[in-house]
Amino acid sequence: MRRVEAPPPPTSAEESTAFDGSRYAIPDAVSREEAFVQLEERVREARARGMQVVVVQGMGFVGAVMAAVVANASHAGRPRYFVIGVDLPTPAAYWKVGMLLESRAPVVSEDPAIQAYVDRGVRERRNLTAIADERAYGLADVVIVDVQLDVAERHFESAGSVAVDIEPFRAAVRAIGRHLQPGALVLIETTVPPGTTAQVVVPLLTEEFTRRGLTGAPLVAHSYERVMPGRHYVRSIERFWRSFAGATPEAGDAAERFLSTIIAVDEFPLQRLGDTTASELAKVLENSYRAANIAFIHEWTRAAEAIGVNLFEVIRGVAVRKGTHDNIMRPGFGVGGYCLTKDGYLAQWGIANLFGADVSLDVTIGAMGINYAMPRHSFELLAEAMPLEGRTVLLAGISYLSDVADTRNSPSADFCDLLEGAGATIVAHDPYVRHWPERPQVRHLPLDEGLARADAVVLAVRHQAYLTLDPRRLAMQPGSVILDTQDIVSDAKADELRGAGLRVIGVGKGHWRRLDRERQR
Amino acid sequence: MRRVEAPPPPTSAEESTAFDGSRYAIPDAVSREEAFVQLEERVREARARGMQVVVVQGMGFVGAVMAAVVANASHAGRPRYFVIGVDLPTPAAYWKVGMLLESRAPVVSEDPAIQAYVDRGVRERRNLTAIADERAYGLADVVIVDVQLDVAERHFESAGSVAVDIEPFRAAVRAIGRHLQPGALVLIETTVPPGTTAQVVVPLLTEEFTRRGLTGAPLVAHSYERVMPGRHYVRSIERFWRSFAGATPEAGDAAERFLSTIIAVDEFPLQRLGDTTASELAKVLENSYRAANIAFIHEWTRAAEAIGVNLFEVIRGVAVRKGTHDNIMRPGFGVGGYCLTKDGYLAQWGIANLFGADVSLDVTIGAMGINYAMPRHSFELLAEAMPLEGRTVLLAGISYLSDVADTRNSPSADFCDLLEGAGATIVAHDPYVRHWPERPQVRHLPLDEGLARADAVVLAVRHQAYLTLDPRRLAMQPGSVILDTQDIVSDAKADELRGAGLRVIGVGKGHWRRLDRERQR
Repeated sequence: MRRVEAPPPPTSAEESTAFDGSRYAIPDAVSREEAFVQLEERVREARARGMQVVVVQGMGFVGAVMAAVVANASHAGRPRYFVIGVDLPTPAAYWKVGMLLESRAPVVSEDPAIQAYVDRGVRERRNLTAIADERAYGLADVVIVDVQLDVAERHFESAGSVAVDIEPFRAAVRAIGRHLQPGALVLIETTVPPGTTAQVVVPLLTEEFTRRGLTGAPLVAHSYERVMPGRHYVRSIERFWRSFAGATPEAGDAAERFLSTIIAVDEFPLQRLGDTTASELAKVLENSYRAANIAFIHEWTRAAEAIGVNLFEVIRGVAVRKGTHDNIMRPGFGVGGYCLTKDGYLAQWGIANLFGADVSLDVTIGAMGINYAMPRHSFELLAEAMPLEGRTVLLAGISYLSDVADTRNSPSADFCDLLEGAGATIVAHDPYVRHWPERPQVRHLPLDEGLARADAVVLAVRHQAYLTLDPRRLAMQPGSVILDTQDIVSDAKADELRGAGLRVIGVGKGHWRRLDRERQR
Repeated sequence: MRRVEAPPPPTSAEESTAFDGSRYAIPDAVSREEAFVQLEERVREARARGMQVVVVQGMGFVGAVMAAVVANASHAGRPRYFVIGVDLPTPAAYWKVGMLLESRAPVVSEDPAIQAYVDRGVRERRNLTAIADERAYGLADVVIVDVQLDVAERHFESAGSVAVDIEPFRAAVRAIGRHLQPGALVLIETTVPPGTTAQVVVPLLTEEFTRRGLTGAPLVAHSYERVMPGRHYVRSIERFWRSFAGATPEAGDAAERFLSTIIAVDEFPLQRLGDTTASELAKVLENSYRAANIAFIHEWTRAAEAIGVNLFEVIRGVAVRKGTHDNIMRPGFGVGGYCLTKDGYLAQWGIANLFGADVSLDVTIGAMGINYAMPRHSFELLAEAMPLEGRTVLLAGISYLSDVADTRNSPSADFCDLLEGAGATIVAHDPYVRHWPERPQVRHLPLDEGLARADAVVLAVRHQAYLTLDPRRLAMQPGSVILDTQDIVSDAKADELRGAGLRVIGVGKGHWRRLDRERQR
């Protein structure tokens, strides 16, 4: 295998701090050289035992788990792959490598399978490791790209203003190109603007190949994960449908062979699409579809509230229609997370910037704007129910999804800002989240203490712990307000709480609003 | 039973002509009196045999079939109901009564069960009849309202401009109120603006009761059908979920008892909603959801065409995700029919006019506008492929839905106008439609003759007959254009046709467009 110079190491001893406070020293030049030599030795041994080498670029939310899943693949009872997770030797990123080397999954998840897979790969089978050294790409039979490709903002007013920060992604692809062996497969798993694989990845890799004096085209494919956070994270990779496409027929074949060893293709057959742009478009379409469905229901939520209808009840009736209406969404607090707040913008950017096409995804971009503004609706319901100046509001639930710890782009953050802008004090409770990185100033309290101190509680996330809550625990001081944004409080419980002198209002609960208005008269 | 004066009969002998050309004399005063006396006698006999009396107001697309379905209900092997279909003694409507009296279903449908049910009711069990006399409402235990309530236009630019013509519906309700017996149930099945049952129907009936010196409130409920045209029409009534609600608890109970005798509630349990406004909202929400889903895909259709992607292929891959993505729509030619082109407007009108609420259903109204404009997209694809002036275009499929004969609000009509405006001549083929009431000037030709004469063919509807067509039959003169709007022509067939010198383009077929552009260079 051809030896390539390592890029310059960090100039001074630096540290990288993980989400849980663990600190990792970023290796200096000597340590890195040592680590790479050891890695090469392990790769030689693995190859001697019949394993192929898979390098995963990006140890984030998807890449770290993907690495563990690939390491878990077996053939005739033995590991099929030796897997190397790669991330950058920077304060922001190195802790992921550090954690994985200690057999600690560098992601917060409710799925116990992730840590089990990491332990199996790192400790038992010893076919999973990590390194902060791009030379690792030169050891790979397959490189899986799981780095981020992000938008400049989480909200754009119109299709024309969408901006994407593609440079970090381009730099990541170049790093691969500097070391990749001809014949190795590069599988793009990052969600990218349609056209990126063909128009960005292939040209960049080709350029690096040319610079290195290599002939032959790089082997590139695109396939997208459909990971769902929560308790079945690993299953959502291994046992779920996959679409993919190769930039060339050979690359498509290589991707098909590889994916077939990772995914339960007997039950979830692979779907090979006509070209990589189709595969890229499919991913952003899927998430845009959900975003548009949510926006649609949000406008009917406002209508239902205005005309006194319980929209949750209506939707339960509608959603029985399988195949035509069961994708219908429910009223709620807002949309967060990494994908639904971004992917429609990626689509628009690719269409306009990679193809120069004059097509505006107005419905999609408009829907994302509506979703972005959703927490304002809950704020307005609360402000209508009580003056907020000087009040304390307990925000019950700050993750962006029920029963996960993930707070990325959570609508709770914007809601928090609106309340603080109105002069209220926010205290927070979330059974999954102890530290809220996006709003570190907010004080976290145990639920009962928060309820005792607050003038209002906002049930913002449909966590199991809230669904099973004894309503008597919600019995705050008379005159307090309960805002249920997630159909957590039943009509009967709401009546009981009203009997105790509370005001109970809810997103999508038009019948409560009618009742509340009648009582206020 | 109290006797009421009949309204004045038509002033002269008039005729009413059915869709198939059958002509029916509208009965004069003497005949009508005779018919009503006979009806009263039959009702007495039916009651003596233990039947209840159901009167269906409106013998249109839903009412006629509903009447036949109710007549088919049995109890201990005998008919449960004596059913009377009522429509107006006018040239526009009377033929429906005339046909039913002859045991001919007054609707065009592909479901053979409809005619079988009509024959069973009219001829065998003799518990189904019809009359053009509003006094029939006075004979009823249950009146089912299936008259139309229509919008003023099929397209409005904005939420603020939506107009609904509610007067005919009000007049129909008043007619019931003039004769209804206290204690009889009025079941509104017409799709109405949310709020109509509580704010229009109940007050009108109460007013008529008061005028007649009756005390007690009328018994009113709302329940909506989810009829699907096509081969399983009857099943879509009998074996499908139903939501309903009463204006009062008693009315809700009465509706529940009645519906339980018509619908297979063991398998499709009834869904009782909190109030009639919720039931009304549910119906218009269901159809608006579908309309919004179609509009969403239409904008991605334009994107896919611009960037060279086959969107049909992409969507096949996406739709495997049951429960989250299987409601996703496919690219197509446009949206027609009675419901999806109207119900979102009814919702907006009810919200604004019955509740005075300041909520605009912008996503919904915008989506309907996009759908309305869809045939223009197919027109533009065709115009891009060939100059249209002086050309002959075969429009293959003119119904609004596959494998039905229904042309109501079909996008084919607008497409036809656009082509004629561009100087082209339209000829039509549809295996289900011989007469196109909305565009009577268009000449219909057998498929092969049409293909031989035309410079272009537009596959506009996904009829089975087109899906199974041998592509060799599509081999028109070299240079001709085939525009496939419905994923009818496979890639392989398209290649074959291109080999024969044709241009093959398609809605949502970006990969064809790319190919077509390359060949044109």
